[in-house]
Amino acid sequence: MERTLFVINPNSTQAVTDAFDAGLQRLRVAGGPRIACLTLREGPPGIQTQLDVESVTLPLVRRVRELDREHGAAAAGYVIACFSDPGLHAVREATPKPVLGISECGILTAMTLGQRIGVIAILRQSIPRHGRLFGAMGVQDRIAAELPLELGVVELGDAARTRERLADVGRRLRDTHQADVLVLGCAGMADYREWLAAEVGLPVVEPTQAAVTMAMGRVLLAAPAS
Amino acid sequence: MERTLFVINPNSTQAVTDAFDAGLQRLRVAGGPRIACLTLREGPPGIQTQLDVESVTLPLVRRVRELDREHGAAAAGYVIACFSDPGLHAVREATPKPVLGISECGILTAMTLGQRIGVIAILRQSIPRHGRLFGAMGVQDRIAAELPLELGVVELGDAARTRERLADVGRRLRDTHQADVLVLGCAGMADYREWLAAEVGLPVVEPTQAAVTMAMGRVLLAAPAS
Amino acid sequence: MERTLFVINPNSTQAVTDAFDAGLQRLRVAGGPRIACLTLREGPPGIQTQLDVESVTLPLVRRVRELDREHGAAAAGYVIACFSDPGLHAVREATPKPVLGISECGILTAMTLGQRIGVIAILRQSIPRHGRLFGAMGVQDRIAAELPLELGVVELGDAARTRERLADVGRRLRDTHQADVLVLGCAGMADYREWLAAEVGLPVVEPTQAAVTMAMGRVLLAAPAS
Amino acid sequence: MERTLFVINPNSTQAVTDAFDAGLQRLRVAGGPRIACLTLREGPPGIQTQLDVESVTLPLVRRVRELDREHGAAAAGYVIACFSDPGLHAVREATPKPVLGISECGILTAMTLGQRIGVIAILRQSIPRHGRLFGAMGVQDRIAAELPLELGVVELGDAARTRERLADVGRRLRDTHQADVLVLGCAGMADYREWLAAEVGLPVVEPTQAAVTMAMGRVLLAAPAS
Amino acid sequence: MERTLFVINPNSTQAVTDAFDAGLQRLRVAGGPRIACLTLREGPPGIQTQLDVESVTLPLVRRVRELDREHGAAAAGYVIACFSDPGLHAVREATPKPVLGISECGILTAMTLGQRIGVIAILRQSIPRHGRLFGAMGVQDRIAAELPLELGVVELGDAARTRERLADVGRRLRDTHQADVLVLGCAGMADYREWLAAEVGLPVVEPTQAAVTMAMGRVLLAAPAS
Amino acid sequence: MERTLFVINPNSTQAVTDAFDAGLQRLRVAGGPRIACLTLREGPPGIQTQLDVESVTLPLVRRVRELDREHGAAAAGYVIACFSDPGLHAVREATPKPVLGISECGILTAMTLGQRIGVIAILRQSIPRHGRLFGAMGVQDRIAAELPLELGVVELGDAARTRERLADVGRRLRDTHQADVLVLGCAGMADYREWLAAEVGLPVVEPTQAAVTMAMGRVLLAAPAS
Repeated sequence: MERTLFVINPNSTQAVTDAFDAGLQRLRVAGGPRIACLTLREGPPGIQTQLDVESVTLPLVRRVRELDREHGAAAAGYVIACFSDPGLHAVREATPKPVLGISECGILTAMTLGQRIGVIAILRQSIPRHGRLFGAMGVQDRIAAELPLELGVVELGDAARTRERLADVGRRLRDTHQADVLVLGCAGMADYREWLAAEVGLPVVEPTQAAVTMAMGRVLLAAPAS
Repeated sequence: MERTLFVINPNSTQAVTDAFDAGLQRLRVAGGPRIACLTLREGPPGIQTQLDVESVTLPLVRRVRELDREHGAAAAGYVIACFSDPGLHAVREATPKPVLGISECGILTAMTLGQRIGVIAILRQSIPRHGRLFGAMGVQDRIAAELPLELGVVELGDAARTRERLADVGRRLRDTHQADVLVLGCAGMADYREWLAAEVGLPVVEPTQAAVTMAMGRVLLAAPAS
Repeated sequence: MERTLFVINPNSTQAVTDAFDAGLQRLRVAGGPRIACLTLREGPPGIQTQLDVESVTLPLVRRVRELDREHGAAAAGYVIACFSDPGLHAVREATPKPVLGISECGILTAMTLGQRIGVIAILRQSIPRHGRLFGAMGVQDRIAAELPLELGVVELGDAARTRERLADVGRRLRDTHQADVLVLGCAGMADYREWLAAEVGLPVVEPTQAAVTMAMGRVLLAAPAS
Repeated sequence: MERTLFVINPNSTQAVTDAFDAGLQRLRVAGGPRIACLTLREGPPGIQTQLDVESVTLPLVRRVRELDREHGAAAAGYVIACFSDPGLHAVREATPKPVLGISECGILTAMTLGQRIGVIAILRQSIPRHGRLFGAMGVQDRIAAELPLELGVVELGDAARTRERLADVGRRLRDTHQADVLVLGCAGMADYREWLAAEVGLPVVEPTQAAVTMAMGRVLLAAPAS
Repeated sequence: MERTLFVINPNSTQAVTDAFDAGLQRLRVAGGPRIACLTLREGPPGIQTQLDVESVTLPLVRRVRELDREHGAAAAGYVIACFSDPGLHAVREATPKPVLGISECGILTAMTLGQRIGVIAILRQSIPRHGRLFGAMGVQDRIAAELPLELGVVELGDAARTRERLADVGRRLRDTHQADVLVLGCAGMADYREWLAAEVGLPVVEPTQAAVTMAMGRVLLAAPAS
Repeated sequence: MERTLFVINPNSTQAVTDAFDAGLQRLRVAGGPRIACLTLREGPPGIQTQLDVESVTLPLVRRVRELDREHGAAAAGYVIACFSDPGLHAVREATPKPVLGISECGILTAMTLGQRIGVIAILRQSIPRHGRLFGAMGVQDRIAAELPLELGVVELGDAARTRERLADVGRRLRDTHQADVLVLGCAGMADYREWLAAEVGLPVVEPTQAAVTMAMGRVLLAAPAS
């Protein structure tokens, strides 16, 4: 198998995987790693609670170990495609390959695009959990606010309603909270990135794209020069 | 059964449970909740890696749910007795009862005893993990430093060696890092609290005691006045 | 005299003392320390300005020294029951017994109940003073906002008006500032804790209860095992 | 009386007052406010504990009110010349005139002279107290370290010993803690400012000079144009 | 020439220079340094973009070197009178004399007048740039918010419109963001300081006055006593 | 011309450009953008002072505008390859293309590889300047320490001496400051990345590689799918 970067959706909703998979198309280039998007069958339909987060941690570790065993050096790196970065540090212990989380990479990438970051959560209940992540990252001073769409992961398929909410939340982050860059706080919103950026006039980071970018660099730089 | 506060050691080393159990003796008062210390049989001998942390999360959730089912209202609250606070936020979702972690309560209690907190880890590899916790808590400015004993959980039973290391690390936290209060960064060091405080001349927080204290308050205040 | 924890209201309004005294009832348990609530006669009717704070510092020190002299070892610890923590660090120098402030303990306890803390002040003019305290504690990143009731200490007796204001301010902290836990920023609001928690659907910390809890732990743990 | 800025030494050691008085000589200019240095007779010989701090707060308030009454508009402003800024916020309530503290102004001025501030305390026991002040000011990220001379206020008169300690502590702040500016953490070290700056090759802030500078600006700007 | 403090407006709008020059009148005292206000002819009409900032950096360095050459020791210090502090650290390398920026000094002075600082920008696009400055200063926890007038530098001459906007923004900073002190975020608003303070009932810092004050202190203290 | 990412060395030392150019070899893949490394002829031999930083800002802006004019859409993005990120925000205003700085990207990438970042500066005098950058980025809590090699840019060619210093500084960052990831704080050290990582047993980030990685992602994602 050629050198592959595995992007794993920890929830079991194939539509989410499909959404970010399509969004990664432009990162698939000749000479770059293959980018393979997987759905974690054991996962819940959406990672919405802390229990959801914990329920996928060991399955993610097992999946990564299987992929490592199955593909050896061809398994070149991993991206965990859920904005709660479930199991990120455990998976890092389980494999010597690069492992990136989309929450960390989404925020870090936004830090190069604006000074005040607005985060768009799907649900209100995720916000304290993300707040702990941002605190652990030490980047809280850069977060203007995080506001929820109040849509579940599986409701993101309703495009009309999702756009309406995205536009509303994006404008409030821009106008009330002075955000000058937005981060989509869920792996399932890749379809809306360019539309939302045009709609609110701010750069918008799709975090799976951000993480795959950083993982590609790690994969390429780690390779033996040829 | 009378109203009981369950203190769960997520590792499987009974000696650790015994150590903090003894250290909780003075908190057992006639009118207070019963304090029952349990060992999580599924746990590893010590929680030393992030994988160890993740490996006990769902078992902790299950154990708490079982205790809730078995004891009903008599199960009054839970303390997770490991300095990495494994599964803390997941267990909070799994039960309506108070759930406290010893890492958070150890640090919060130290904040009432000094301005610069020195933390004594057992192993160097735990320090970045604790750093993420302190960041998530937003208390990093209060941490003078965390230094390791370089002793595994099960080695804490060797009292002479443990004392020697504790005294050395405690003095370095005091003298080089200007700590004015120390926190024992592991549930298995309760025996050494008073000795170390005398040895280095600083207050020393045993975090299981700190967490049980805060949990007792929650349990007592939640009870219907009688 | 049996081992006693003294909770001192630094203002001279007996109704405030009575309010938190009643709120501490559930913490009075067989085997625990006696909890005695005192009113500092020299204090002003309410601690509303920095001058009020300073005016009670030395009287608090004197009162604690008198209690220490009068009761010896039976005076087991002290809680200063004013949300400005007047004289906290001076009293700590004046006695070897545990001394806790309700502002610090209220905030620290809230940190175990939510990620974003909303504080309810009685008056707008207290907010910068509390801001300095939170800064000194190093917990500013955890404070969502502090909003005032605009009621003086002595006006808290008007229950209907106080409830109306509490509900309004609590909702704004929850909805506008995304607080997920509230702290009552005055010792005189104990009566309203459970009502407000039900009203806004968030945990509410009554800070005198929080401080007495932490002080009880210190008192019990300091006692010689028997 | 001509417009006067009162600089009050809250301790009763006239030698300290004399030291900073001499250091203010260059700030006495035609057209500027008179700068009068006073010693608070009620103060302790040095402000070394929190109790010392609290013991001078109300005397400072009374002294400022007397000066206001006695001199009316001619009493143009006040500087509290002790590095613990005792009573700063209370005195601000007691008079409408500008009131500056030497700790705050010393640090703020140092922030224009370097990126990492080293503070030289006289005694180790002051360091946690100063840490609370720096936290309340929100400037902790700019403090490289604070180290003590381990000399009491009254020992500062022994010039040879003081110089030896200053040079040693200054060098450690520069070399171990990467300070690029130093602040003298006591009003009694004005004599040593220029010597120490030359000795360690870093700018050194004498905090009474810093506070009088900022107070002069406030006094001059508040005056009616003539 | 007598000892002179040069205050340099990096933009080429003489009306801005005239405005802050008038506002410095009260700081001109017989024994103090002469205060000379200059306009940088090479500057753009207003410093509104980062490119504007960079376009004046080397011209400022050159101007300061010329003044140093021309006036020798009589050139006693420099203030850069633009709220983006253009070239501040470069000019500091170019001359051994004191160099102060109005942004840093405006904020530092506000820190002695209130706990939560509201900043009034002229344009929205300056706010992220100022945010980087406040971050570099390490004072972000003290900034309540920065809001724009949405007026260009040259529009500040329209007094009626400027007052209307200042009052509106000042009230929002006070009421929505709980600012208790305001800073004028542009050198061209000196005329409005006292009016705005009266209008909103908060202290207002004019940053050029703040910087000249701190520079005067540096100049006077550096001089040989005579 | 094919789509090209320009990596501009703002100093005039071709050996530095050559060093990072070689280090980027693995990022040159068939389907990715061409990566062209340029030397800014107008730059000084090394960017060692703030004046050096400012001296290259406008030349960088001009160079980027020329490249934009000359190559149109084929000029796909820019990396400024100096660890002081000179002109970063000005260049961002000058072109609509992605512009990344190696300091920001080096630190952001390190944040995915460890919790405590050790930075290796070439010269002590750069450290305060970098401190301002890290403050502006809001990531100061993640920086364990920055220590200098005390080698100028042009001295980096002496491999034996550079290795000796790198190993010494790397070990001190790891052992004294508890860094668990290192960042090379200069564009001229690419040759040493893998050697140093092996030598100290920590991941080492070469910042130009980090920035080119993030820029590649931006370039690829911005392109029309083909």
